[in-house]
Amino acid sequence: MGGDHGPAVTVAAAQRALQRHDDIKLMLVGRPDALEPALRERGLDQDSRISIHAASEVVGMDESPAVALKKKKDSSMRVAIDLVKQGAVDACVSAGNTGALMATGKFVLKTLPGIHRPAICTALPTITGHTHMLDLGANIDCTADHLLQFAVMGAVLAQAVDDNARPSIGLLNIGSEAIKGNETVKQASQLISETALNYAGFVEGDDIYTGKVDVVVADGFVGNVSLKTAEGVAAMVNQVLKSNFRRNLFTRLAAVLALPVLNRVRHTLDPRQYNGASLLGLNGIVIKSHGSADEEAFANAIKIAAIEIDHSVPERIRRELEHHLNATGEEA
Amino acid sequence: MGGDHGPAVTVAAAQRALQRHDDIKLMLVGRPDALEPALRERGLDQDSRISIHAASEVVGMDESPAVALKKKKDSSMRVAIDLVKQGAVDACVSAGNTGALMATGKFVLKTLPGIHRPAICTALPTITGHTHMLDLGANIDCTADHLLQFAVMGAVLAQAVDDNARPSIGLLNIGSEAIKGNETVKQASQLISETALNYAGFVEGDDIYTGKVDVVVADGFVGNVSLKTAEGVAAMVNQVLKSNFRRNLFTRLAAVLALPVLNRVRHTLDPRQYNGASLLGLNGIVIKSHGSADEEAFANAIKIAAIEIDHSVPERIRRELEHHLNATGEEA
Repeated sequence: MGGDHGPAVTVAAAQRALQRHDDIKLMLVGRPDALEPALRERGLDQDSRISIHAASEVVGMDESPAVALKKKKDSSMRVAIDLVKQGAVDACVSAGNTGALMATGKFVLKTLPGIHRPAICTALPTITGHTHMLDLGANIDCTADHLLQFAVMGAVLAQAVDDNARPSIGLLNIGSEAIKGNETVKQASQLISETALNYAGFVEGDDIYTGKVDVVVADGFVGNVSLKTAEGVAAMVNQVLKSNFRRNLFTRLAAVLALPVLNRVRHTLDPRQYNGASLLGLNGIVIKSHGSADEEAFANAIKIAAIEIDHSVPERIRRELEHHLNATGEEA
Repeated sequence: MGGDHGPAVTVAAAQRALQRHDDIKLMLVGRPDALEPALRERGLDQDSRISIHAASEVVGMDESPAVALKKKKDSSMRVAIDLVKQGAVDACVSAGNTGALMATGKFVLKTLPGIHRPAICTALPTITGHTHMLDLGANIDCTADHLLQFAVMGAVLAQAVDDNARPSIGLLNIGSEAIKGNETVKQASQLISETALNYAGFVEGDDIYTGKVDVVVADGFVGNVSLKTAEGVAAMVNQVLKSNFRRNLFTRLAAVLALPVLNRVRHTLDPRQYNGASLLGLNGIVIKSHGSADEEAFANAIKIAAIEIDHSVPERIRRELEHHLNATGEEA
């Protein structure tokens, strides 16, 4: 039903995605009395490419995942994931409550064999392009085995999305030397280095944004703090730039002249381009769009779902996990 | 002996600090054959305000703290901290190996009563001013009690440095709701809320840079990743701005016109202004300057030492810790 902004944004994003990707079909899941007017407003009719599937309830953004799972069996989120499970659709894209989405995904779709914990993974801009980072908050206490599984899942995603045969993997730590860090990251480093993955060792927080590696692995607590920190710094820089360009007549003139450059910078770093986090490790494709995503951002999340469908990401994770765990002598 | 750049920067920074603060005296600790020429080069003589104290060894930047502590008893770092212990000087400022500095500080000065682990604390720029954050990497596995002690130490530092009678304290977590986070932060939140501190509850990574609270408390692993992430994002934004302003003749012209604004932005966010991290919880004042600090940055670290001396920070931490722990019914 569209996160913070409701169906108007979801429907506008759906229209944009249909225009951009002529091989996709969309099913809007939610209350028909809200979705039908939103479709009409954009001049859209239900047809072979876009349709409404009724769901009577909505999970609130602050609702407990356990309560949502137990009580709201006809929520748009639950119905959409049920449709993935039934094979009626190939992926679910939601801007709803992250915890509830993950809990529902796990309950309905189950995790892939060998995956104990699904992880949230997103692309982040870097000086040289982008990097994939996981986990961004689904798992607050991770073992070395979980981090190993994240490494495999991140590698598969980077292979699929970036067409990169051997993406490099870094493990987030507080120093690049092998003696640094807690026992969990040291053990995880050992485990990942024993796989056939292209493991580059430990990376530090600043390495995420230099593009030193293609995939950064962290536990969900650290990953979430890092992601939010980055958002905070970006917002602060933006704010300081703005207020300084608005200082007086001269600076306002400078701003006008610098505008094309500043717009280009804004475009390069535009978080909307990076909207759409994958809930990796589920037996199906579920993409989380930011709650406050606008039309462009949500359309990007739909694009990511389409790419993951094209590359059968869950199936590839299952295969690769077997392969990597067998390489270390373990059973998958 | 001056971190990555050696005595030339240290001596230049010392000269700058002497000019700015006419109530301080400096003792340069290190090899006289390196320090004397550096003094001469800047037209300085040893006098009542600046002198050399000989130390024959230097701790390498990658040396293990344990080895440095055991084997290098005449290192500049060890000798400088010994001078603090003996009361010959009031504080030590070093741009050397952080781990060795912390280990030497703990071994020689000991921790204050009630402090199990000293923490690294620094000021960070925010939209509204600055915030103090600790721990930034000294302690990778923290208990709730450690986080409580960090909260007290951070509050004292903010009181002293900012002249803020009741600095607000936030505990870094992955959500602001009480149910979020791991057991350690939940317990720590309970403990801090039972003190007389001005506790604002959980904060998220982005709140650090909005200036939501005056002090942000985190374990050293998370704090370090957050700090490095912020450095990485700032470097990336800077790089993207630069390359876009250098794109063509028009953008170069825009850059010239925008230069005063960009310089002001750069000044506001200048990391050199925030150089100088406090090793809080030691029975003495030890300030860590960034290894790559230049003259201005190192002079700022000296200024921080002077402020902490003026405000008897270690003594105040000792007193406040007794006070806050007594308030919770525990013995200090």
